[in-house]
Amino acid sequence: MALIVQKYGGSSVGTLDRIHHVASKIAEHKRNKHDIVVVVSAMYGETDRLIHLAHALTPHPDPREFDVLISTGEQVSMALLCMALHAIYCPARSFTSSQIGIQTDDVYNKARILNVKTDRIKSELQKGHVIVIAGFQGITQHGDITTLGRGGSDTTAVAIAAALRADECQIYTDVDGVYTTDPHLVPEAQLLPIISFEEMLEMASLGAKVLQMRSVELASKHNMPIRVLSTFSSGPGTLVTFEDKIMHKRLVSGIAFSQEEAIISLAGIPKQIGLEGLILDKISQAYIEIDMIAQNTTAQDTVDFTFTVQRREHSKALKIIEDVAKKMGATSVKTNAKVAKLSLVGIGMRSHTGVASVMFKALGEAGIPIQMITTSEIKISVVIDEAQLERGVRVVHQAFNLDQRPVLAENYIE
Amino acid sequence: MALIVQKYGGSSVGTLDRIHHVASKIAEHKRNKHDIVVVVSAMYGETDRLIHLAHALTPHPDPREFDVLISTGEQVSMALLCMALHAIYCPARSFTSSQIGIQTDDVYNKARILNVKTDRIKSELQKGHVIVIAGFQGITQHGDITTLGRGGSDTTAVAIAAALRADECQIYTDVDGVYTTDPHLVPEAQLLPIISFEEMLEMASLGAKVLQMRSVELASKHNMPIRVLSTFSSGPGTLVTFEDKIMHKRLVSGIAFSQEEAIISLAGIPKQIGLEGLILDKISQAYIEIDMIAQNTTAQDTVDFTFTVQRREHSKALKIIEDVAKKMGATSVKTNAKVAKLSLVGIGMRSHTGVASVMFKALGEAGIPIQMITTSEIKISVVIDEAQLERGVRVVHQAFNLDQRPVLAENYIE
Repeated sequence: MALIVQKYGGSSVGTLDRIHHVASKIAEHKRNKHDIVVVVSAMYGETDRLIHLAHALTPHPDPREFDVLISTGEQVSMALLCMALHAIYCPARSFTSSQIGIQTDDVYNKARILNVKTDRIKSELQKGHVIVIAGFQGITQHGDITTLGRGGSDTTAVAIAAALRADECQIYTDVDGVYTTDPHLVPEAQLLPIISFEEMLEMASLGAKVLQMRSVELASKHNMPIRVLSTFSSGPGTLVTFEDKIMHKRLVSGIAFSQEEAIISLAGIPKQIGLEGLILDKISQAYIEIDMIAQNTTAQDTVDFTFTVQRREHSKALKIIEDVAKKMGATSVKTNAKVAKLSLVGIGMRSHTGVASVMFKALGEAGIPIQMITTSEIKISVVIDEAQLERGVRVVHQAFNLDQRPVLAENYIE
Repeated sequence: MALIVQKYGGSSVGTLDRIHHVASKIAEHKRNKHDIVVVVSAMYGETDRLIHLAHALTPHPDPREFDVLISTGEQVSMALLCMALHAIYCPARSFTSSQIGIQTDDVYNKARILNVKTDRIKSELQKGHVIVIAGFQGITQHGDITTLGRGGSDTTAVAIAAALRADECQIYTDVDGVYTTDPHLVPEAQLLPIISFEEMLEMASLGAKVLQMRSVELASKHNMPIRVLSTFSSGPGTLVTFEDKIMHKRLVSGIAFSQEEAIISLAGIPKQIGLEGLILDKISQAYIEIDMIAQNTTAQDTVDFTFTVQRREHSKALKIIEDVAKKMGATSVKTNAKVAKLSLVGIGMRSHTGVASVMFKALGEAGIPIQMITTSEIKISVVIDEAQLERGVRVVHQAFNLDQRPVLAENYIE
């Protein structure tokens, strides 16, 4: 008998039929004598409907009241799910975050969980009930309602699992798990049975389609394994866990990518201490988010500085940078508004050199120029033309044999 | 400066435009330096949408979860109303019944309020905020969500007003107030500036379209005057208050009526102690609600017994009664499934005889046979053919000069 926290996302409870389906899955786990705590999202589309309502009413809805409004979505789905469980004679009780005591800070619309009380959950579990809790929300110390931001239900589930010291936190979603890359782009992409927290975090854009990144950080912090599973098919999904739990480490685990990026380069900036800060100062003052940064100092007296922003902020950022370039005496500003980022992720590359060269060689042989490179310990990211992204992902995917299953021995590092 | 509790019903907040309109009304009261506590219903149609959702999911939704579900309707409207208030720079904060502490018993779907905490309301009022509270709901001592039944927001408003010892409880609705009779039926019906709690309670069917009867009982118990007003027009509405606050008492205040009734009579039942109980026992066992009861004992050894039920339960009730009649040896069962009840209500008739005869004479002269009569201290009800209801209401309305405004002196009793 295990204590399992399960989270069902908006598409999993998107229709009444799906709610019945989820109820039958939960009841089956319950029959297997597990203790089940369920965290549920709003029905697909409901949160958007409420947000639309608020913005149709007033262009700048009060943040406190905005959370009061949109938190109702999960309350609706938790009640419906419990009704569906009752209908198949599975005893269940729903609770809001206020009733459980999921305490957050008071940053409305993107609150962070500070503490989860477990006494009510434990006493209800002892009565044999399935507990269904509204995800995505909490209360401040004054009892005001907060929400955690998009995808916050994942974080709720992990926080509750950590507080209860659950055996596993299962995230049920509409995909089978985490893949070596996006199967929509590369049909040969393979399901990863296991991945480390760090890799999952570095997968960012790819992983974010499956799990909210903050929930992965939280799970990593509390050593709470997460299993990503499909609500609509059987299969073990992907276990996201600590690196030392992974017996067979892969050299690389997957390829993430993000589109809609833009690159801006300043060349020949006369050297001065703190010039990087001066460049980015104006950008951050304009609330433009910067993704990648790379800097070269090949020349003796000048520096080249390159960064990427989201495409929709490109023209705004470029205008600022042209002004900055003039003031700092840079020789030129180069830019490309139609680029994409391709990232190779794997804990194995930490101890193995040569990964980068295999990647660059594959891209080079495919005739794809690299416009920028950044690296972290377990990730190599390159910027390429967006038009060449799909081919880029494919050739790198093949270069590391990620399309082969079972995965070839040579791809394991221990 | 006064402390005013205002309740806005579902049609008052039925669209975003109406929510803006209500916000401007509230802000105006606030500018007049009043302390304002607002109780709000779900947007028109929302509660029905949620009920439909539950019943589409399962034929017998769990009562606890049903309340969790439908209580979200008011949470949505209170948040939207506060946003609209913020948008016009009127500081406002919304609170669920859990946040305020509106404690009820644990009878889900039709809970009764036991206690209203006022400390949070008072401290927020001191900060200069308009307080917006979700109507229709409460929490049990264990913190479970309950709802108060249809129209429960009126009761919430009165309970809060009573707990705060507010100066007035204003119920904003889509009618101008309480009329002498239904203006849809009798266009000459007049708005009553004032009416006693007892009359309002006896107006039942007529009053229930304006105010939930339980809220009138509660207001009467706590001596809390209620003012019924229109959200959509100005005007003083109708003040519902204690009899001794009414300076000029009318002989009669209004004519209520209800359609969709059916009458069943047993004639010639041999006398026996407790026969009334025996007759109604089977009816109540079948969960059929009885409205009026009249009994005559003109004959020496037999009794006539007449009662009314709602029309939709007529055939069920008739079948039971035919069986009962046979067992008890009644000579006949008479019935009419298409009758209506017409009730004349007025605190004045308590001390004045002759009201009944004026009423019966008016009906007689109009050629409308009376099929049944019952009386209470301030009410006379008759059953007539439903086809004659409209004409019956008109002639009685005229007989008491209820269609004249300003009301004639002779219609006042002091």
